[in-house]
Amino acid sequence: MKKIDLNSDLGESFGRYILGNDAAILEAVSSANIACGFHAGDPVVMSETVQTAIEKGVSIGAHPGYPDLTGFGRRAMALSPKEMDAYVTYQLGALQAFVGRYGGRMNHVKPHGALYNLAARDYETARILAEAIYKFDPTLFFVGLAGSEMIRAGNEVGLKTASEVFADRAYTKEGLLVDRAQPGSVIQGTQEQIKRVVQMIKEGRVLSVEGDWIEIQADTVCIHGDGENAAPFSKQLKAALEAEQIEVASLS
Amino acid sequence: MKKIDLNSDLGESFGRYILGNDAAILEAVSSANIACGFHAGDPVVMSETVQTAIEKGVSIGAHPGYPDLTGFGRRAMALSPKEMDAYVTYQLGALQAFVGRYGGRMNHVKPHGALYNLAARDYETARILAEAIYKFDPTLFFVGLAGSEMIRAGNEVGLKTASEVFADRAYTKEGLLVDRAQPGSVIQGTQEQIKRVVQMIKEGRVLSVEGDWIEIQADTVCIHGDGENAAPFSKQLKAALEAEQIEVASLS
Amino acid sequence: MKKIDLNSDLGESFGRYILGNDAAILEAVSSANIACGFHAGDPVVMSETVQTAIEKGVSIGAHPGYPDLTGFGRRAMALSPKEMDAYVTYQLGALQAFVGRYGGRMNHVKPHGALYNLAARDYETARILAEAIYKFDPTLFFVGLAGSEMIRAGNEVGLKTASEVFADRAYTKEGLLVDRAQPGSVIQGTQEQIKRVVQMIKEGRVLSVEGDWIEIQADTVCIHGDGENAAPFSKQLKAALEAEQIEVASLS
Amino acid sequence: MKKIDLNSDLGESFGRYILGNDAAILEAVSSANIACGFHAGDPVVMSETVQTAIEKGVSIGAHPGYPDLTGFGRRAMALSPKEMDAYVTYQLGALQAFVGRYGGRMNHVKPHGALYNLAARDYETARILAEAIYKFDPTLFFVGLAGSEMIRAGNEVGLKTASEVFADRAYTKEGLLVDRAQPGSVIQGTQEQIKRVVQMIKEGRVLSVEGDWIEIQADTVCIHGDGENAAPFSKQLKAALEAEQIEVASLS
Repeated sequence: MKKIDLNSDLGESFGRYILGNDAAILEAVSSANIACGFHAGDPVVMSETVQTAIEKGVSIGAHPGYPDLTGFGRRAMALSPKEMDAYVTYQLGALQAFVGRYGGRMNHVKPHGALYNLAARDYETARILAEAIYKFDPTLFFVGLAGSEMIRAGNEVGLKTASEVFADRAYTKEGLLVDRAQPGSVIQGTQEQIKRVVQMIKEGRVLSVEGDWIEIQADTVCIHGDGENAAPFSKQLKAALEAEQIEVASLS
Repeated sequence: MKKIDLNSDLGESFGRYILGNDAAILEAVSSANIACGFHAGDPVVMSETVQTAIEKGVSIGAHPGYPDLTGFGRRAMALSPKEMDAYVTYQLGALQAFVGRYGGRMNHVKPHGALYNLAARDYETARILAEAIYKFDPTLFFVGLAGSEMIRAGNEVGLKTASEVFADRAYTKEGLLVDRAQPGSVIQGTQEQIKRVVQMIKEGRVLSVEGDWIEIQADTVCIHGDGENAAPFSKQLKAALEAEQIEVASLS
Repeated sequence: MKKIDLNSDLGESFGRYILGNDAAILEAVSSANIACGFHAGDPVVMSETVQTAIEKGVSIGAHPGYPDLTGFGRRAMALSPKEMDAYVTYQLGALQAFVGRYGGRMNHVKPHGALYNLAARDYETARILAEAIYKFDPTLFFVGLAGSEMIRAGNEVGLKTASEVFADRAYTKEGLLVDRAQPGSVIQGTQEQIKRVVQMIKEGRVLSVEGDWIEIQADTVCIHGDGENAAPFSKQLKAALEAEQIEVASLS
Repeated sequence: MKKIDLNSDLGESFGRYILGNDAAILEAVSSANIACGFHAGDPVVMSETVQTAIEKGVSIGAHPGYPDLTGFGRRAMALSPKEMDAYVTYQLGALQAFVGRYGGRMNHVKPHGALYNLAARDYETARILAEAIYKFDPTLFFVGLAGSEMIRAGNEVGLKTASEVFADRAYTKEGLLVDRAQPGSVIQGTQEQIKRVVQMIKEGRVLSVEGDWIEIQADTVCIHGDGENAAPFSKQLKAALEAEQIEVASLS
């Protein structure tokens, strides 16, 4: 029986500002990527999100980002390698404090936003992240874009890696995500999205925007936590996967 | 042979802003209280300070404060118990990431600035801090003002506590620090300061500002890291203590 | 014909985080208190909110707060007089840049959250705020709790003042707001709220929580911008006021 | 008689962190570029720096930067045009509040750090800055690197521009600054630096790193405010210029 992980970015509320529908999404996903206070989240939100994830039996990961609350970590910043290393390490430690407090364990790390995008295509960045994660805890999974520099760097450093795929995004024939600014970059329709996910998992391939089948490794599917439709979609997807004899389970 | 710990607040530089003379002070003290990025410090500074402290054989502690860089953690903030607990936990975890990275271990926690002052006189605050520390790691020392609510709460929670005394501050007959705004609040003269420290350690007493001898427990002496005179004073004090057969050693 | 101003705190979104229903509320109120980036808001939000307020013919005021995004300006901070003065001045200037850019003019200042609450009961704080506002622009209205130290300080400094009343809050016989933690602090029911507002405006009095009628000056009514019911309530209130021959108009 | 402006970045202290020797430098320069709280400075520092500049008769300019205190505005951030426009406008307004408070007037704007560097070579960025400045106050000088996109955009928008030259930096034959990472990028020796400044002012040319004379427009010379040698150098330079019959005077 095939297995797949469903992951979602959670704990992205901040003080008075509520974002996403964490409670509902935690019912459907197997892994939670929890913001660490740099691009989103705050210590109280982190504490509560970790507790809830543990209660629901959802696997916990850190979701480190750029130090930019105003930009939600979506604006690239020219950090030095030393800064990037230290910023990621700091965030992992901060989240770990809550995970340890409530008797859980951290299972993976997935970078956020502009940091994820940079690390996907820039090996040096991916390598800095992979080494920081490895030095923090060599048993962690490094979750990154399928086929990207993150997966390559993670493997080279000796981390376990998990290749992430997207239900709602089109791929180029090189296996990269089509830029959101391009026409056709977003896959419309729940049924079409689910069909593509099932293909990626069962057949290891996806139809590129150019019309070619490309190989793709699917270990975990990203469920956007802040979309309006996130909770019902994640439930539909889970049901469809189980109907296809694909078990939803956290990375292991 | 008597023992005493000398502690100093370190790692309080921030980005382009250099504060204190950490390298020199690390030569003289036995314990470093390292800022965690809320009132001072940043991840790069934390990383470097932890490394240096380990190299110098100086014992490492966390120095959590209010989330207020502009005010350097010296302005009280009306935090809820839940916020205070989460903010301290977050900071302990962030520092621990660097301590673990470089193969060290965290030995103590000393709150900073306005948080220290509040916890010294307010049992509820002291208790929240003590419990957060205990849940993070029950083997840590809780460093607080001698005779204060911090020491009481730490003991009740089951933490080891270390009573801190000040070389340069006058005490009231109740054993509290004379407010800095009052005349006579600061002890002038290196020799007088050293004499008082030796008395506190050897005789367990200090002359209050009112002229009465009061009992005081001295486990650790605070060396201000940002004074101009900090490095030479700490060396003089260390030499004077050793001449009195008092060994300078970290808390244990 | 009686006149009343309806004011609401607006522009409190922050980056990715959307708060309140500004567009709908701007249809009903006569004055917008716009956050200045310290407790909420960011420069882009400020720019857009100012533009929209001008388009809708809504009078613009600054809504300065404590520098505490995580706490939404609701946590008191021990600022020095110099800090408080400078922080308010900074925020007024920042907002004025957008008001000037789009050809509007600033008409009033209303402090936010914990700063409002402190200034309502502490004359020194109220005086610092009033002087900072006066030095920035002596023609501005200082909006504060009816009967509070803000109104007193504003008048003494030479500012025009506007006494704010609340539709949904109970008053003590001293004319203060009943603490939210007390039973009966919140007035339930739209009809009851509207009846009280009409009484305050037409009769200059309100029934206190103790059962005594007290005098109250009502120049402006606060419409909470972040409640779910804010937009429909403000429309209902406006219609009810007009039915009572009370004109809704900005401060002048 | 030739005229030249000497400008320096000032008011870059932040809370407890003191940077630069503002008091001494204000004795020698004719223009102060005052940080606005985004990359450095805070409202109290701004208030005090503006007051001192006015007392010393030094011309005041705004020194806006990226919102990045940890990186001191030296790390490029991928801001959208809307964000860049709003961030600059916000900072200009915030500084103007203090300038107006103390009866001064703002005379120029010089972007800081990574924002300056980007705007020097990227026309779109330069244009956004120029337009934001123009809309804020069309009488302001836009200070930018001599020969750069800032000067071009400023002129096109209708601003007065001031071409900035550096005493201690080498130029390429295209008139750009040699990257600091390259050998020979920094001009050594006070006498050599002064000689080059005099040449740039009197002869309108400078010897490039490749050995060619290039034309350069010198309206204002940058005095680094945070170097150890800043205050004595600025006095020496001023004396040398006056000996050459070059008057030091603010932009007009």
